[in-house]
Amino acid sequence: MKPLVGIIMGSDSDLDIMRGAADVLKQFSVPFELTVVSAHRTPARLVQYAQTARERGLRVIIAGAGGAAHLPGMTASMTTLPVIGVPIKSSNSIDGWDSVLSILQMPNGVPVATVALNGSKNAGLLAAQILGATDDELAAKFELFKHEMREAVQEKIDALKDEWDNEFDAKDTASNL
Amino acid sequence: MKPLVGIIMGSDSDLDIMRGAADVLKQFSVPFELTVVSAHRTPARLVQYAQTARERGLRVIIAGAGGAAHLPGMTASMTTLPVIGVPIKSSNSIDGWDSVLSILQMPNGVPVATVALNGSKNAGLLAAQILGATDDELAAKFELFKHEMREAVQEKIDALKDEWDNEFDAKDTASNL
Amino acid sequence: MKPLVGIIMGSDSDLDIMRGAADVLKQFSVPFELTVVSAHRTPARLVQYAQTARERGLRVIIAGAGGAAHLPGMTASMTTLPVIGVPIKSSNSIDGWDSVLSILQMPNGVPVATVALNGSKNAGLLAAQILGATDDELAAKFELFKHEMREAVQEKIDALKDEWDNEFDAKDTASNL
Amino acid sequence: MKPLVGIIMGSDSDLDIMRGAADVLKQFSVPFELTVVSAHRTPARLVQYAQTARERGLRVIIAGAGGAAHLPGMTASMTTLPVIGVPIKSSNSIDGWDSVLSILQMPNGVPVATVALNGSKNAGLLAAQILGATDDELAAKFELFKHEMREAVQEKIDALKDEWDNEFDAKDTASNL
Amino acid sequence: MKPLVGIIMGSDSDLDIMRGAADVLKQFSVPFELTVVSAHRTPARLVQYAQTARERGLRVIIAGAGGAAHLPGMTASMTTLPVIGVPIKSSNSIDGWDSVLSILQMPNGVPVATVALNGSKNAGLLAAQILGATDDELAAKFELFKHEMREAVQEKIDALKDEWDNEFDAKDTASNL
Amino acid sequence: MKPLVGIIMGSDSDLDIMRGAADVLKQFSVPFELTVVSAHRTPARLVQYAQTARERGLRVIIAGAGGAAHLPGMTASMTTLPVIGVPIKSSNSIDGWDSVLSILQMPNGVPVATVALNGSKNAGLLAAQILGATDDELAAKFELFKHEMREAVQEKIDALKDEWDNEFDAKDTASNL
Amino acid sequence: MKPLVGIIMGSDSDLDIMRGAADVLKQFSVPFELTVVSAHRTPARLVQYAQTARERGLRVIIAGAGGAAHLPGMTASMTTLPVIGVPIKSSNSIDGWDSVLSILQMPNGVPVATVALNGSKNAGLLAAQILGATDDELAAKFELFKHEMREAVQEKIDALKDEWDNEFDAKDTASNL
Amino acid sequence: MKPLVGIIMGSDSDLDIMRGAADVLKQFSVPFELTVVSAHRTPARLVQYAQTARERGLRVIIAGAGGAAHLPGMTASMTTLPVIGVPIKSSNSIDGWDSVLSILQMPNGVPVATVALNGSKNAGLLAAQILGATDDELAAKFELFKHEMREAVQEKIDALKDEWDNEFDAKDTASNL
Repeated sequence: MKPLVGIIMGSDSDLDIMRGAADVLKQFSVPFELTVVSAHRTPARLVQYAQTARERGLRVIIAGAGGAAHLPGMTASMTTLPVIGVPIKSSNSIDGWDSVLSILQMPNGVPVATVALNGSKNAGLLAAQILGATDDELAAKFELFKHEMREAVQEKIDALKDEWDNEFDAKDTASNL
Repeated sequence: MKPLVGIIMGSDSDLDIMRGAADVLKQFSVPFELTVVSAHRTPARLVQYAQTARERGLRVIIAGAGGAAHLPGMTASMTTLPVIGVPIKSSNSIDGWDSVLSILQMPNGVPVATVALNGSKNAGLLAAQILGATDDELAAKFELFKHEMREAVQEKIDALKDEWDNEFDAKDTASNL
Repeated sequence: MKPLVGIIMGSDSDLDIMRGAADVLKQFSVPFELTVVSAHRTPARLVQYAQTARERGLRVIIAGAGGAAHLPGMTASMTTLPVIGVPIKSSNSIDGWDSVLSILQMPNGVPVATVALNGSKNAGLLAAQILGATDDELAAKFELFKHEMREAVQEKIDALKDEWDNEFDAKDTASNL
Repeated sequence: MKPLVGIIMGSDSDLDIMRGAADVLKQFSVPFELTVVSAHRTPARLVQYAQTARERGLRVIIAGAGGAAHLPGMTASMTTLPVIGVPIKSSNSIDGWDSVLSILQMPNGVPVATVALNGSKNAGLLAAQILGATDDELAAKFELFKHEMREAVQEKIDALKDEWDNEFDAKDTASNL
Repeated sequence: MKPLVGIIMGSDSDLDIMRGAADVLKQFSVPFELTVVSAHRTPARLVQYAQTARERGLRVIIAGAGGAAHLPGMTASMTTLPVIGVPIKSSNSIDGWDSVLSILQMPNGVPVATVALNGSKNAGLLAAQILGATDDELAAKFELFKHEMREAVQEKIDALKDEWDNEFDAKDTASNL
Repeated sequence: MKPLVGIIMGSDSDLDIMRGAADVLKQFSVPFELTVVSAHRTPARLVQYAQTARERGLRVIIAGAGGAAHLPGMTASMTTLPVIGVPIKSSNSIDGWDSVLSILQMPNGVPVATVALNGSKNAGLLAAQILGATDDELAAKFELFKHEMREAVQEKIDALKDEWDNEFDAKDTASNL
Repeated sequence: MKPLVGIIMGSDSDLDIMRGAADVLKQFSVPFELTVVSAHRTPARLVQYAQTARERGLRVIIAGAGGAAHLPGMTASMTTLPVIGVPIKSSNSIDGWDSVLSILQMPNGVPVATVALNGSKNAGLLAAQILGATDDELAAKFELFKHEMREAVQEKIDALKDEWDNEFDAKDTASNL
Repeated sequence: MKPLVGIIMGSDSDLDIMRGAADVLKQFSVPFELTVVSAHRTPARLVQYAQTARERGLRVIIAGAGGAAHLPGMTASMTTLPVIGVPIKSSNSIDGWDSVLSILQMPNGVPVATVALNGSKNAGLLAAQILGATDDELAAKFELFKHEMREAVQEKIDALKDEWDNEFDAKDTASNL
């Protein structure tokens, strides 16, 4: 299947973090591609990647970068696709503030959908939500994901009861609110 | 036409900023609705808004809030729709850091697509891009928007030439790169 | 005995920190309950917990969370009980600033009594003080706690004298100031 | 009636902010006193105020200060009453960070219930909640306050409908969730 | 004369600040050009400007931008010329931190010579110093500039003597140290 | 009388702030001198000022500067006198953080006694305290200053009583603690 | 010999850092005392220490504390002696900002001479400088200390020459500038 | 060959970081010298180094320092050569902010070309670019360096293909854009 989501990152050292986005998309059976595109070291590759993304069938781009992180914003400047930016806390980063602000504070006209520092899993989920906005099957999978997430919390709640008293023992009942 | 985008904000004092998102959606002919939903003062309304958003036909939610800004994240916790968060620099904000971090730093499982501080225009554009990911007509409008944005810059470039010399006089030629 | 204080946290990974509040309440013989309530993964549980807290007999709620920490503020939005918020420095936190600001900067109308980063022991003490405001027996225990704290400092002061000279040798005499 | 809440501040220049706490307590008919106690310029007064507060009948102390704000923490060191700290953004403050951190980051053993920067209204509300933890009449007033706050939001929601379409027209229904 | 320095900025709204660089270059009789190049709105223009800069005869590029300021770094990625970056405190900036960090924190391999926030005058001076590194005439002008700067300070020192006593009355004697 | 304190500042634009130090020293009848010494524009003057300060009879130096504030630390590197640094929030400062950190964070071996942002009055007082450490007459003046400061607070306390009730009416009694 | 400098700290866990001040004073043969005084856990001890410091013969107080560090400022409020504050980066500190700002940002009237984060050695040196302001013998020792510091750097400069070429081989010649 | 670039640092403990600049200059065959010059411990050496730099044949100075980093700015104040500043994250630094701001925020008239925190490699590259601005051979080497950097990225891109699918397989083609 042709990829619907493109995952790019500024360096292969970002792969440990960005793998999280890929894992999520696999879990949702959303076809994706993953590669390195460096805004600063391979600018021509960046231009080509961004300008051909839509015609190649991509629907969403996830771009992760650290430090003075220009990859997400520059990609967004050359495509009409939604671009999700993942700030990465790289070595020599000033506590992650540099990548967060370099990705978040885009000027009017060129948005980047920024997620939390190192938040590549949420980038994958957001891509699934974006595709699911007009895809009921994917939306159903997302609903199931939320359900499983609740169940996982519930299991931990139950496990805690062995050690800790808790008068409030109602199960999570989101569905019948 | 039924709204596809829901614009919500924590207080009517946020309207001056959030109007920017509405203006953009009008410009792109994307039907939307706009109202106030306060996470802290009307939590039941928040629950109802978020839980019914998809079934009411919304495809994207834009949520703006200032200070300890919980509206975007809590909305995201109760819907499968993509939620765009707009940090607002309210009075008594600590320079906007509070709303930026309260919206951006969501835990794994519940993403919020965060835009720049007071970046409501970009929130509107991002909503259009999300819908345009699978809507070629809207994508074409976005391409035109980008073209007009370039033209507007070009006019300013031309205007500057009266006062300032500039050897580099090539027009912007993104289309034939 | 029915619990008077409810200790909740966004994730069981917060337990290492939040255990400090429980330890303090045990020390003061204040009955409490402890469980996980995730604002983002179990929002319905949050609603139910907050809305039933007073009728179930709780008098104070202690809520700890990291990152975009919405649990304390959202709990406060749905109860009339005082809510104590504990910012937790979780992994991927931006140095703890995210949880501190997400909890502290609540809008007018919905206060959260915020304590220091990872300050769960102080959250337990504050809960005891709140109950002790109208409970002389508990206040007496708190006075004793302060006395023991002074004694513990005094022991360290005495121990230091072996290595370091110190002309000022008066004992702590807070009671007769 | 004897005051139950003591409102103190480091300087009379803080009165413009701290008046907010007094207004709230008047609204809830909670008797209070208000005066200036400067930790740095009148330290003996601080000692006396803090050490006599409980015996004089106070149940909660609200302390506001700016810059290197030592008043709330030092008061807490000398009383068993709960102390609410209000960071104030004074002139020459470094954006309010100094007072926020000086009040919030108390060591284990001496908590201060910190509210938002300039958040004196919430300090007043928190004092009412603390007293209301064991006072059903005051709790009922607080419930009413929350109701009125919701009504005020609802009026603004209704006013917005004149200009902005909004499919979601359900009234706030917190009571029957 | 053909320009040796190219001054570019992300928006014509940056001209008020960036004019400072032009004024300095005029003062040093260094030929320059000035125009708008928006990394995000005219990316193709950016590519062309950067890639042709050296062959067109430029020796230094000064690039100013605000917010998520990608112009200096992206220009540096596509030229071998030294690039001076000027962080600009634009509206909706988070106190200037966004542009400072977006420009300063470039990854290994692609330096940007960053000057102070709004420091366009220093950008012009730095360009003159760079050209003056191998141009003795320009270096002599710079020496003169430093001399005049000292003289201007000396005049203010003298003026102060009317109001304020000052035992230390030695003139500045840098030349004979 | 020969000056005992030297007040220097990086620019005459700092005089509005630094005047505060002079006013305090006049009040304490401590002879002082005041002039401009720019670390960056008149470095030779800085060297001469610092190296001759002690032999000219100065006992303390107060140095104020903004931005990358090198004047206090460089002065300290060339004298054995105590140097008090006053961080000044100049235009284009990044909220004052630049001058605060440039002055405060001196390496081991070369201390600067740093006071609050724009805190020139406290710099003057600290100079008086330093001289008063071994001068009983000056120490007595300082005691009086503290007394007058208390009296001034007391007057404001009394004035507040017209509008606000206050059960705690003890006068400040620091002297008989 | 009676101590001239009092070194106090909020907790014995601060001793690892504060030992640096003691080491320096020993090196300068300045008699000192060292003990723990906790502003928050032993406030009466703090009052007594500060109020009796001058009459007991102390000439300077060095106070170190972490977090919401009130010890230096409160000590300064109750003595006419100069107080040197040492911000300590304790566990659960927010990167040290809390102690820095709590100590530095004192209000007008009550200065604290703040040194760098964990800068206890500089606190010791500053104390020696303050005493040396009016003590020529101590000043001579300080001059010698500066000389030895230069010599130590010179040795490292010489050691570097084995590996690295260096055209500039002049010895340090501060004395004959 | 006589050195064209002078690399100086405030302490030999900075050598681990500053070695990066030397490595780059060796790679570009740019002759350089390297030594320690401490602004605070050897101020006379600083004056001599800066004032003789140009006459000794240097064309660029690279200065690295941590904490209150005055070396780059003070060097710039006493030479007409371009000075590149490298902020170093030393122990007891406040997350590197102190050195970044002390170097970056220079006043008008005395620029320092600041690179990223610990960015000594980029300092070396910037020095090569500055010399290459008027040296075609060096510029050609820099073009080659950029080419090799692209090739290195390309190899990593190719390596990634084993594990990850990627529809976009175009090689980097910057040369024929």
